[in-house]
Amino acid sequence: MRIEILCTGDEVLSGKTINTNYSHMARRLQEIGADVIWGTTVGDDRKSLRAAFQQASARADVVIVNGGLGPTVDDLSQEMAAEAAGVGLVLNESWLENIQSFYKARGREMPPNNRKQAMLPEGAEFIDNPVGTACGFAIDIGNARFFFTPGVPREIRLMLDDQIIPRILQMSGTQAKVRLKRFHSFGLGESRVDEMLKDVEAMAIGGEVKLGFQAHYPELETKLFARGTDPDELIRRMAPIEKIIRDRLGPFILAEDDETLESNVLNSIKSDNGTLAIAEFGTNGAAASRMVAADPDCFVFRRGVLGGDINSLASALDLKLNEASSAAAAACAEAVMRATGTTYGLAVLIPKGNEGGIGGGEGQVYIAIAKNDGTKIERPALIVGGKERVRAGGVEMGLDCLRRALQGLVTDDRIDFEKKDSV
Amino acid sequence: MRIEILCTGDEVLSGKTINTNYSHMARRLQEIGADVIWGTTVGDDRKSLRAAFQQASARADVVIVNGGLGPTVDDLSQEMAAEAAGVGLVLNESWLENIQSFYKARGREMPPNNRKQAMLPEGAEFIDNPVGTACGFAIDIGNARFFFTPGVPREIRLMLDDQIIPRILQMSGTQAKVRLKRFHSFGLGESRVDEMLKDVEAMAIGGEVKLGFQAHYPELETKLFARGTDPDELIRRMAPIEKIIRDRLGPFILAEDDETLESNVLNSIKSDNGTLAIAEFGTNGAAASRMVAADPDCFVFRRGVLGGDINSLASALDLKLNEASSAAAAACAEAVMRATGTTYGLAVLIPKGNEGGIGGGEGQVYIAIAKNDGTKIERPALIVGGKERVRAGGVEMGLDCLRRALQGLVTDDRIDFEKKDSV
Repeated sequence: MRIEILCTGDEVLSGKTINTNYSHMARRLQEIGADVIWGTTVGDDRKSLRAAFQQASARADVVIVNGGLGPTVDDLSQEMAAEAAGVGLVLNESWLENIQSFYKARGREMPPNNRKQAMLPEGAEFIDNPVGTACGFAIDIGNARFFFTPGVPREIRLMLDDQIIPRILQMSGTQAKVRLKRFHSFGLGESRVDEMLKDVEAMAIGGEVKLGFQAHYPELETKLFARGTDPDELIRRMAPIEKIIRDRLGPFILAEDDETLESNVLNSIKSDNGTLAIAEFGTNGAAASRMVAADPDCFVFRRGVLGGDINSLASALDLKLNEASSAAAAACAEAVMRATGTTYGLAVLIPKGNEGGIGGGEGQVYIAIAKNDGTKIERPALIVGGKERVRAGGVEMGLDCLRRALQGLVTDDRIDFEKKDSV
Repeated sequence: MRIEILCTGDEVLSGKTINTNYSHMARRLQEIGADVIWGTTVGDDRKSLRAAFQQASARADVVIVNGGLGPTVDDLSQEMAAEAAGVGLVLNESWLENIQSFYKARGREMPPNNRKQAMLPEGAEFIDNPVGTACGFAIDIGNARFFFTPGVPREIRLMLDDQIIPRILQMSGTQAKVRLKRFHSFGLGESRVDEMLKDVEAMAIGGEVKLGFQAHYPELETKLFARGTDPDELIRRMAPIEKIIRDRLGPFILAEDDETLESNVLNSIKSDNGTLAIAEFGTNGAAASRMVAADPDCFVFRRGVLGGDINSLASALDLKLNEASSAAAAACAEAVMRATGTTYGLAVLIPKGNEGGIGGGEGQVYIAIAKNDGTKIERPALIVGGKERVRAGGVEMGLDCLRRALQGLVTDDRIDFEKKDSV
């Protein structure tokens, strides 16, 4: 099955928008064992779209067209799809009603130009979009099946998983099942994990298991996938390899599959009937913001205090501190825990002066954890990189240190992003 | 001058690497008035590269090929360039010496496979790479001039600016200039702004002015472009249209060009020698986190307090409040201002119960601003959408309400993302 991704729109062509839709789609398709063989990007103009559709239909079995389904005059996907398929456009009454209700639910009239979004090529297969006014559709052009999808990231992501991928799997005939297993780790670089796991693909018995990595600093995703016809057989085939990965990466594994560092922290605290408060500066508030995003009902996460620097944070916590230090972090963790009445307090302090710029330098990070039984953990670190990496790495390390403490794991494993002489 | 960007490599094709080289190159080329008309992405395989080179040479005057110049066997650019140009590969002695000195300077021997990086198609124009071992080169294939460039971001960036762009400008003969003007707004949907501005392109005198939109909820970017030879003429041509846009969108415009909502809020407070503290819940801490990201030295933004709900926020501020309300928001704004000793306090409260799910439902947002002269503004709103949109819209509205208040604008303009019966 040869798949082409055809991205349309002046914003993407001109580089104004970084094409993350492309990378998301290609990655997801690879995870189900489908290969993207070609990527094309063209602007909102008829001549280019015509040529791109023609060329894609000649080299691919499936073409996913992204963008161009909006209500404005520069959105040309339906029109050009109809032209390429040699059919006219017809109104999809039920989708028009859907758009009208969408506006009505928001107390507004549908603007007249949105009607265009319900005009589909004759004979096209309708593809639902439960979260927007641009529906998708599929139609044959030449020998290829074309799937037309909206450019809004959350709309294409949902449509790809719920609508397009099942159709592609069905087309590929072999009722193929795919099993994907993901491990999320923090602290080991991609080349190191690649080295640590270089023999595992060869250990598969009874069929192929593929290993892949996706680094999104500060986390690394290690992915295993296998294809077959029987889901149980896939589980059996992959289980011994999963175990090896768990053994080798050990405490560096933050979470598996859809679990996250945050959800693991929350579950560990919850199982203890505990609660959490966070004090931080130099982090853009990311430690608290990540926890509250994972715990919107605030069963566990109770309060975040974000200061501009050590002075403003200390005064918010009724402390007298002049300088960030490991001991200052411990004092902040304890103070925010006491003031909020929680069982745990976390402090992440990243003082200014991480002036390495993009890709260079290093930055001091002070992390501390307090528990209401009087236990304290301090974990200072010198993280390599410019400001952004120090900030992201420091916040990740803070939450990870808490996870390790909660799960009874060692909290001061040396990480790859840390300077050797770090204290 | 028609330019195509041809990105090669399995990492980019499979989506593992997000293609920021593409967007960087396309943006830089647009800034010099050169139009990218096509983007192609193919993997490291001969058949695809052959077809991609042939198709690109048929539709473009200039093709920039990115990637495939490395020392390993899957780097095929030189080989395929020579094949497509119908010539052999010859050793560039001076580049080989350069690679050898590069390794020598690092106290190492050049690995034998790096010799491959000095093999260029016969007759190719050498293009220097002062920061890596992959040199660039240019050669004609069909009617197009092909520039081959390395995939390492800082290498291609430098080579593009210092080597490729001067050659393209020389080829194009003319000195075309581009002017881009951007307006950032909040509160008006893309179709409404499209409708409000549908006649402006036609008002241009003395040359074309193009209008475009980019929605990234909750903000909308309205862009005007024009091309010509004289920068002053472009400014004169666009000025009346910019004025019309400013008049029509009025207080909905948050910022222009590289300014942002946050920078405008900061500048307005700073010009008053003021300072700011923020109290919030239901926002994931995004109000404080956006402000501190824009004001990393905390000249203006002094403290953020993030609660889990009204009770935890109130107790952090020494208030007695049982329920989120407009009055409760005003009390929180005042309390966080007094406790921090700032001139302004902002509260953004988003109570639970926004259960519409993705794309559906609506959510109550309470926004309040306090000033230390006793002034208070309350701006409750019922924002349409699921949790994520309510949260992003509520935070944006909170910061925007502060901007409007600081700039003496009306703070309760009805917005498109708000329910009609909103109170």
